[in-house]
Amino acid sequence: MKVRIAVDAMGGDFAPAEVVAGTLMAAGGLAAELLLVGQPDALRSELTGTAESGRLTVVEAPDVIAMDEHPTEAIRAKPESSLMVGLRLVKEGRADAFVTCGNTGAAMAGALLTLGRVRGIARPALGTVVPNGDSGLGLLLDVGANADCRPLHLVQFAHMGAGYMARTFGIPRPRVGLLSIGEEDTKGNALVLETNRLLRQSRLNFVGNVEGKDLTRNVADVVVTDGFTGNVVLKTAEGMADLLFNELRRVFELTPWNRAAGLLVMSELRKVKRRLDYAEYGGALLLGVEGIVVIGHGRSKARAVFNAIRSAGEAVRNGVLDVIREAAAEVPARPGRDTDDS
Amino acid sequence: MKVRIAVDAMGGDFAPAEVVAGTLMAAGGLAAELLLVGQPDALRSELTGTAESGRLTVVEAPDVIAMDEHPTEAIRAKPESSLMVGLRLVKEGRADAFVTCGNTGAAMAGALLTLGRVRGIARPALGTVVPNGDSGLGLLLDVGANADCRPLHLVQFAHMGAGYMARTFGIPRPRVGLLSIGEEDTKGNALVLETNRLLRQSRLNFVGNVEGKDLTRNVADVVVTDGFTGNVVLKTAEGMADLLFNELRRVFELTPWNRAAGLLVMSELRKVKRRLDYAEYGGALLLGVEGIVVIGHGRSKARAVFNAIRSAGEAVRNGVLDVIREAAAEVPARPGRDTDDS
Repeated sequence: MKVRIAVDAMGGDFAPAEVVAGTLMAAGGLAAELLLVGQPDALRSELTGTAESGRLTVVEAPDVIAMDEHPTEAIRAKPESSLMVGLRLVKEGRADAFVTCGNTGAAMAGALLTLGRVRGIARPALGTVVPNGDSGLGLLLDVGANADCRPLHLVQFAHMGAGYMARTFGIPRPRVGLLSIGEEDTKGNALVLETNRLLRQSRLNFVGNVEGKDLTRNVADVVVTDGFTGNVVLKTAEGMADLLFNELRRVFELTPWNRAAGLLVMSELRKVKRRLDYAEYGGALLLGVEGIVVIGHGRSKARAVFNAIRSAGEAVRNGVLDVIREAAAEVPARPGRDTDDS
Repeated sequence: MKVRIAVDAMGGDFAPAEVVAGTLMAAGGLAAELLLVGQPDALRSELTGTAESGRLTVVEAPDVIAMDEHPTEAIRAKPESSLMVGLRLVKEGRADAFVTCGNTGAAMAGALLTLGRVRGIARPALGTVVPNGDSGLGLLLDVGANADCRPLHLVQFAHMGAGYMARTFGIPRPRVGLLSIGEEDTKGNALVLETNRLLRQSRLNFVGNVEGKDLTRNVADVVVTDGFTGNVVLKTAEGMADLLFNELRRVFELTPWNRAAGLLVMSELRKVKRRLDYAEYGGALLLGVEGIVVIGHGRSKARAVFNAIRSAGEAVRNGVLDVIREAAAEVPARPGRDTDDS
């Protein structure tokens, strides 16, 4: 099966150059057909010397949504932006997935408007695969789609996340944890206390509350939280890793001996850095919309773009959308109350 | 000025042994008089061979509050616990500060009950000094006293935190940041959006929203957040540092060459680890109660206990309580609505 992936060439801090470079890597290395969506002039110079082939096609989109534009205003004002054109390729069945490293808010709003929600899901959530120690990987969601959540939203995230991990990593009954400030069921804020109660009643393999430090331990396959906390956590972890590697770099430059020591372990340290670099894990998947949408980090360079494309391709091949539809059929819902405010 | 500090000998995962060891370090190294509060039998064996002196006095307390006891029930059921006896020493003016590494919830509830709130403060907050890159230090609060907060609470935290940093680190107008998921004033959850508006109106040096990654950059001297997010963030950062140092250890054991490299840089790496180890920063200060109370990490070993005692002594000498009272006189308050639910 040949997967067709549309890529927003204009989205991201280093677009279009790094996005095009990452897409070319994907065209060369993945069994996928790439649709590069963007302004023809901007793309032409990036693609100089690279023949368009069956694996890489340029789709013209005259407009660009900037990183700092207001999401809903931008998507309404610019239906011919690379973001909206790319999403329509998925809606119209001309692409199987869409990848963007652009304005996250606009990508979510655009996906909702263009593709719509999976039936039964009140709020789509952004899920990111993160290293959780012991070479394990876990899914953290929501990492930023919904700043304010209600308990039922978190329960739905849990069902979607469990379905995703079961299918993608072949885990029979993924362990679901709820991010909180203590392991006891009585610890947490009002949102967590009520969500805990609902998850205890669910058929999920709920392992209870997990703490911030547990994110780097292998205690859960899916960790559920509201989009505010999830986003703060993800960026805190990124910042902490940056700080540590900066300190390491400093240590390895202090003396000639330290420099020699640094040379000895450099290749291993690079591996560690890569393992802890979320960019390596292929961006965040927007779970709960009617299509496969991957939102990469705004700072993505070619390698991160490549990984986002790779992970979109895997999601298509693994039938993640079907999994989410199945999960949605299982989740509790109170339509009148919880689907009115996307 | 001789500072008198009461220490909860029975609180913490490694109590009483490590607490006593840390207190002995403090008795030897700090210009302070230590009051070690706990069960005489348990303390006697730890203190064998150590003469009680003017610098270290044992205060008897027959009861112990366990780490997992229900906070409010425990403090009511055990008025003669080391926690409550220690807090009363402060209330009665027999000690200038109280340090515990025990049950955080019980410590906060006990402090509120015994010492009361500073007039004008609706909710006390736990503040922790954290490394923020460039050898700088910043205060993060609340890190766990209030799982659910209202905007006015966060504004009060900001005033207390700014007062604390101004006095303790001599920063004329501490930069106050609000933890959020984007730098723009329009980014955040409902709590943050309203708090941002209130902080813009305040006389504080408000630098706007800061993100998780900014916690390790030197962009603010005080970062304000609700106790749920703050606690999750702190534990995430701890977990991330643990994960990284475990990976480093693994790298330095891979080959004889790597081991040699490890030996060359070990002392410098230890310094980095210490700089990033929050235990080094002396626990969390409970700001907003009528007394100096420091709550150390439950996993505190002797060195962390020592640092918590040191930081309590500094808070006394720096007149932190007066600073908080002054800050409280400046903060906005709506007594009927916001002081009824401590």
